[in-house]
Amino acid sequence: MTTNNSIPNDGPVVALAGGVGGAKLAYGLYQLLGDRLTVVVNTGDDFEHWGLTICPDLDTVTYNLAGINNLEQGWGLADESYRALEQVTRYGGESWFRLGDRDLGTHLVRTQTLKSGATLTEVTFRLKTEVGIRASILPMSDQPVRTLVHTDEGVLAFQDYFVRRRCEPRLIRLEFAGIGAARPSPAVMSALNDAAAVVLCPSNPYLSLDPILHLPGMADKLRGLHAPVVAVSPIVGGLALKGPAAKIMAELGVEVSPVAVARHLTGQIRLDGFVLDQTDAASASDVAALQGVTPLVTDTIMGDHASKMRLAQNVLQFAAALAQTTAAA
Amino acid sequence: MTTNNSIPNDGPVVALAGGVGGAKLAYGLYQLLGDRLTVVVNTGDDFEHWGLTICPDLDTVTYNLAGINNLEQGWGLADESYRALEQVTRYGGESWFRLGDRDLGTHLVRTQTLKSGATLTEVTFRLKTEVGIRASILPMSDQPVRTLVHTDEGVLAFQDYFVRRRCEPRLIRLEFAGIGAARPSPAVMSALNDAAAVVLCPSNPYLSLDPILHLPGMADKLRGLHAPVVAVSPIVGGLALKGPAAKIMAELGVEVSPVAVARHLTGQIRLDGFVLDQTDAASASDVAALQGVTPLVTDTIMGDHASKMRLAQNVLQFAAALAQTTAAA
Repeated sequence: MTTNNSIPNDGPVVALAGGVGGAKLAYGLYQLLGDRLTVVVNTGDDFEHWGLTICPDLDTVTYNLAGINNLEQGWGLADESYRALEQVTRYGGESWFRLGDRDLGTHLVRTQTLKSGATLTEVTFRLKTEVGIRASILPMSDQPVRTLVHTDEGVLAFQDYFVRRRCEPRLIRLEFAGIGAARPSPAVMSALNDAAAVVLCPSNPYLSLDPILHLPGMADKLRGLHAPVVAVSPIVGGLALKGPAAKIMAELGVEVSPVAVARHLTGQIRLDGFVLDQTDAASASDVAALQGVTPLVTDTIMGDHASKMRLAQNVLQFAAALAQTTAAA
Repeated sequence: MTTNNSIPNDGPVVALAGGVGGAKLAYGLYQLLGDRLTVVVNTGDDFEHWGLTICPDLDTVTYNLAGINNLEQGWGLADESYRALEQVTRYGGESWFRLGDRDLGTHLVRTQTLKSGATLTEVTFRLKTEVGIRASILPMSDQPVRTLVHTDEGVLAFQDYFVRRRCEPRLIRLEFAGIGAARPSPAVMSALNDAAAVVLCPSNPYLSLDPILHLPGMADKLRGLHAPVVAVSPIVGGLALKGPAAKIMAELGVEVSPVAVARHLTGQIRLDGFVLDQTDAASASDVAALQGVTPLVTDTIMGDHASKMRLAQNVLQFAAALAQTTAAA
């Protein structure tokens, strides 16, 4: 009880995250937790492009925690140029995935290191260490999982759907190719064993969290933990703050609301706490009606450094309180 | 006889070339011949780096003919930046091979296109066409050949020897790995069939020309042609104008002289003409003493556009004269 009660002070925390939205909360958590934070990152978005292995969510989290992310653009590196891409375009090459020159440095090192036999976990450790990050950043798995989007225009590879087609085709269902043969990495399992709290960042629940949660053994692992599991809604006021979550939920015939996100998660894992924005305060009772879930209403909009820190602080205090309740029960 | 006599006006010409020195003469020939020129390029220097397939000699020839080469540096593209490389260096990655951002665009398109199943000949056609080159640029083979340098410090991959180690280890012998299974490409054989003249550019005879000449069937092919075969000496006044040719010849125990280059070539192919610099005018009689070889003494230093054109013009007229002699004989 003492340990759980003191999460904001000295307990290790595992955050599950996808791209931009998740990385913002991960950034806030990192400011508070430093090397006590482990971010487990979706790799379902990973793909091969121009012969390079590209891991968009891992890079977004790494660039955010290192403070070298491009704030205006929302993805990629700050102070970026696109001269390689211009040359590719000159050759009539595919240029829909806008790889920056500095960003290419990341993909080149990753590709080279993977080819030399390193695991994605090892490569990610090297990259995050070299940019000075003390927190752990872990790919969810060392085996490849590739999200395929079944749409009314056929099956699309994730980045084809997400970037090239700008999520325009109507989504029918998602497939996580390779997930049956994939496993959470040993480093992920070990971090979960030690966790005093698990935080599901406000990432797209279908595209970013499901690939992590669907890994064989992951849901059971989370269910068996004593640590509280807390999620933050990526849906605010019936809209997704970033990305196609709202559009996807509508296409799947799901109500676009925080409670629908909470319900989607409780269908897969044990969820102890669910954070929803003050805009959706009226939905808190619906969340509370879900088995075992305690709602927290707070300001979840992360526009700047201070708001990321504040939400992280609130989430950690919430988790600490839940841990105390669980221990007292 | 009419055809051969008119080489400078309307006959097709095949030039064999390696990197920088060869590309300069190829540039001069291109100015005079336009789409009548085919440049057959060494691929023994090709290598895989950062997951990319890099073909330094093909790129040097392409960049030179397109007029987008970096004149100060001698290799790579003009107006280049190194931001991807800076990022690689930041990660502690290998940075000895200085890949520019624009140059990366070439390697990315090539790698992607090769992975999609295209041959190197097809990829090279696409790249040279997109930068507006009317001449044919052909890799010597579609099968990989990799030059290995046996040195007093062990066996080194070519770029390891050439760039990373700056040709410092003492060369013992060269090995062209894969050459037994490689063949001159069909496009190369077809260009040779049509050639009114064959020009061996002033490239390193050991590193750049030998991989082409050692391809199974290539020496026989050249021997069987009616077209004159003319070479230009890369050695001037006992020195190589560019690169390690002189150092290598010394390490192989060969005299560093134009006549030694001519002798090296006549050991492999039929050579009708050999162009040596006016500095080496005294060696012309030694060249003339070689079986079947006619010497031409002229200014072979190519410092600017005009000098590249002038040497190309002299080489073509020389070849035309040799063709007439052969036909008359």
